[in-house]
Amino acid sequence: MNLLSLFGKRGASASVAKNRLQILLAHERADDGSDAALISGLREDILAVVAKRVDIDPDSVKLEMDRSGDVTTLGIDIELPAARAS
Amino acid sequence: MNLLSLFGKRGASASVAKNRLQILLAHERADDGSDAALISGLREDILAVVAKRVDIDPDSVKLEMDRSGDVTTLGIDIELPAARAS
Repeated sequence: MNLLSLFGKRGASASVAKNRLQILLAHERADDGSDAALISGLREDILAVVAKRVDIDPDSVKLEMDRSGDVTTLGIDIELPAARAS
Repeated sequence: MNLLSLFGKRGASASVAKNRLQILLAHERADDGSDAALISGLREDILAVVAKRVDIDPDSVKLEMDRSGDVTTLGIDIELPAARAS
């Protein structure tokens, strides 16, 4: 799976002295269905389940949504003040 | 955010004739805390919230976990039979 290996390598090289959780959603459509609602809904749901497991400072959450061609991508970048679930 | 732009571009070029949802989790640790439990827990939670919004065929879900250095990465690749939430 190319995407994943690429992502892992980049993540490892971009290490900084903070605990971080990054979540990327990519929805790839074969048809023309509107997926903005799906991605937006998933964003809310996923942030909620993450918040149950780790402390999230809302100010530290960065969201980035991109739509190009058949792929809608949402990135969620969360700075973790402490690893509560470790 | 380099990771996201890179991911978006790769996703767009790898378009296939199916609806797919890909989710990547990357946990980057500044310390040595065990994050396998965090990632495993998030995997279950996220699959559960995704299943509420789209039809998931369990046989179509591919999981790939990788741990290298300070970064634990989990990839979830789901083939969507239909876009229920579109």
